[in-house]
Amino acid sequence: MSETELPEAPAPEQDELDEDDRLRPEFVDAVLDAVAEGDDEAARALVEPLHPADIADLFELTPHEDRGPLAKALKDLLDADVFAEMNDYVREDLIDALTPTEVADLASELDTDDAVAIIEDMDEAEQRAVLRALDPDDRAAIEEALSYPEESAGRLMQRELIAVPDHWTVGDAIDFLRGHEELTTDFWEIFVVDAGHHPVGTCQLSWILRTPGNIAIADVMKREQTLIPVDMDQEEVALRFQKYALISAAVVDSANRLVGMITVDDIVHIIQEEAGEDTLLLSGAGDGDINEPIRLTVRTRLMWLVVNLGTAMIASSVVGVFESTIAGFATLAILMPIVSGMGGNAGTQTLAVVVRAIATNQLTDSNTRWMVMRELRIAAANGAALGVLIGIGTFLIFGRADLALVIATAMFTNNITAGLGGVLVPVTLDRMNIDPAVSSAVFVTTLTDTMGFFSFLGLATLWGLHA
Amino acid sequence: MSETELPEAPAPEQDELDEDDRLRPEFVDAVLDAVAEGDDEAARALVEPLHPADIADLFELTPHEDRGPLAKALKDLLDADVFAEMNDYVREDLIDALTPTEVADLASELDTDDAVAIIEDMDEAEQRAVLRALDPDDRAAIEEALSYPEESAGRLMQRELIAVPDHWTVGDAIDFLRGHEELTTDFWEIFVVDAGHHPVGTCQLSWILRTPGNIAIADVMKREQTLIPVDMDQEEVALRFQKYALISAAVVDSANRLVGMITVDDIVHIIQEEAGEDTLLLSGAGDGDINEPIRLTVRTRLMWLVVNLGTAMIASSVVGVFESTIAGFATLAILMPIVSGMGGNAGTQTLAVVVRAIATNQLTDSNTRWMVMRELRIAAANGAALGVLIGIGTFLIFGRADLALVIATAMFTNNITAGLGGVLVPVTLDRMNIDPAVSSAVFVTTLTDTMGFFSFLGLATLWGLHA
Repeated sequence: MSETELPEAPAPEQDELDEDDRLRPEFVDAVLDAVAEGDDEAARALVEPLHPADIADLFELTPHEDRGPLAKALKDLLDADVFAEMNDYVREDLIDALTPTEVADLASELDTDDAVAIIEDMDEAEQRAVLRALDPDDRAAIEEALSYPEESAGRLMQRELIAVPDHWTVGDAIDFLRGHEELTTDFWEIFVVDAGHHPVGTCQLSWILRTPGNIAIADVMKREQTLIPVDMDQEEVALRFQKYALISAAVVDSANRLVGMITVDDIVHIIQEEAGEDTLLLSGAGDGDINEPIRLTVRTRLMWLVVNLGTAMIASSVVGVFESTIAGFATLAILMPIVSGMGGNAGTQTLAVVVRAIATNQLTDSNTRWMVMRELRIAAANGAALGVLIGIGTFLIFGRADLALVIATAMFTNNITAGLGGVLVPVTLDRMNIDPAVSSAVFVTTLTDTMGFFSFLGLATLWGLHA
Repeated sequence: MSETELPEAPAPEQDELDEDDRLRPEFVDAVLDAVAEGDDEAARALVEPLHPADIADLFELTPHEDRGPLAKALKDLLDADVFAEMNDYVREDLIDALTPTEVADLASELDTDDAVAIIEDMDEAEQRAVLRALDPDDRAAIEEALSYPEESAGRLMQRELIAVPDHWTVGDAIDFLRGHEELTTDFWEIFVVDAGHHPVGTCQLSWILRTPGNIAIADVMKREQTLIPVDMDQEEVALRFQKYALISAAVVDSANRLVGMITVDDIVHIIQEEAGEDTLLLSGAGDGDINEPIRLTVRTRLMWLVVNLGTAMIASSVVGVFESTIAGFATLAILMPIVSGMGGNAGTQTLAVVVRAIATNQLTDSNTRWMVMRELRIAAANGAALGVLIGIGTFLIFGRADLALVIATAMFTNNITAGLGGVLVPVTLDRMNIDPAVSSAVFVTTLTDTMGFFSFLGLATLWGLHA
């Protein structure tokens, strides 16, 4: 990557990062070797030029047991900004080693939202100790933030923002900004409020810069605003930022009073997390955080696997019904998993598309019927193609037209089942307010397994197939 | 949602949107009914208050065949901003019905990046016709953008930006902004350049507003900048924006000269797409766009299903080897799919976690070995638990200790296979520069199917199990 430290110098090569902005393994090893040898100075010299986000990455790439010594060696390079960028589990690890006063010092350097992110994961006794060590203003702000539900706008927002009365001129606003050193510098828009502190408009800083000072701010501001209710879920906040291409947005309480501001840089990682979690949830891998303690990971995954073991046994009991057919013609056992497995694959495809479309608000009540028809047509086309292929293959390998016809029919039937199930299961769960990403896969694979065994072995039995 | 149109009035209820910012089906129906009845005025009156993003959604929720009449009824409400917000396929649909001059008119109203997004999907003859209809400046800008690779920073950037020389004062910059009406108003930072037009610093607008006019801009600007090479892939651009919490960034050519600007609102939907595509790619559902023509969707999905049919037949041939064992003991056919299926589930969990960790740069060469050990430990724990469970279940149902022991051992073995395969397959593909999300699943499920059948039936044969 190209970062210019000084305008005169050519952009220095950043040896510590590869072309994808990842820390090079040799760099990580060099730092850890220095720490292991007790050469803290060398470690600090290596890490000093890094961006806080990269220092956070360094801790994530460091084995669990080496994080403490690394933190000790880096001392104040490990500042509040680094903690704000760090993975939750890795941060908890390090925070556990600090005293409440040290945590309070870190928190007081940060905007409310970042301070809350650090404090919200601590247990209650520790939280109280840290809050006591904070100065009263910071404490009040953080306590209020903690009073909102987890993953709500109230936790995400910062209280540091610029709000000006609607009777001011642009010049008044500029004088106010120049005259108050204590105000935040991290803002991209200013909010215009009425006497009751209700937001009535938003002003991009570029508009203020482009407008003569004597113009009323009410004539510059945009009156249509996208306001965020303080109890809104962070996933909805993220979708709203994305849909309306927001840079920042005012957060309002139930009386529509301005209580905070959310900026897009706090939203970007939520958009990324929420968009990425479908894969993990569909597979039953929980939040899939690689820094999660192994015990928690095993518990999450095992729960899902045990549920699937139960459904697999149900599907297998269908095979049990046809035990005598199989005993008379063992070739059926060879082909049977192909029918169920291919149904599972087709169902997973439909499921992936539908779950994604629901999560991004593209699939709504308005187009559900259209979506079902669409997936049915796709399933019919794919089912027919796969049926013909497996039919031909079976005939060529086993030389039996009856077996070929049975497996082709079963394959087509199971594809239709997969297409229908792949849409109807997640849509139904969503209408019942159950997250379709979490539970759909279990139902759909049970459906395609059962239907795969039943259609293939059932047809074979009806047809009287035997060796 | 709460939008205030006029500060005096209470926030009007937005009847057209539900609580998740989705258009209500009744609203969509009302608009389409009005169009069907030829009452264009009524349709326009309903749609007029909507945000461009919502008008774009309306077209996406409208059945294919009704989109033309809807566009005709809405006339100029269907403006450039609406096209910029629209799904690619739906936009192509509508753009196809326009003349090159009409498309050129739309494009000239937009920033370069949005204009390019509209034009890049047209076929070459149409592109040329549209470019001819543009005025020379716009044409040059768009032609240059099109000269960069698809999905690169050059396509994403806008050329409308504010750059000022490094010898100016803050006051000079403000005078420049006030004195030039033709400049863009959509910017959040200004870039400071040297005589060779190389960026030497970035200035947030808030800093300019907070600084007295006589201060040199070089004393206000931040010298550490994150510069984006013009040929960088959009996925890397998105990760960089996210990692360093950028609002906007300068784009530079190979000589490090400032050529454009990317703002975070253009990146947000890329972050969302790139993060969400893993689920779709892992399942072989392509880009999973529900507006894609059915023919393309069938082709994408069928290709993947056919590959899987091939691997399923390979796995089944393993069953074929043990045909006589099954013929002698058909109960094995009942239990066999449980072992292979559970291995597939466990493999999918590991795969989902690993693919996500690779995509977000969390899994790098520095921690691959640690990750393999982590997944092995998880697989051992889950495999042991599932082995005990299925062993007990088998003993209770079939009353045979030998069968229970065989399936328990096979289950454990297949979980270990799944854990190892789930890490090693995507890591290896990634090192070979193959997207692990696209190809991993085929390899891993083939592995778990084959190993599931082989370990279970092989052990049963070795043990000499029979009815």
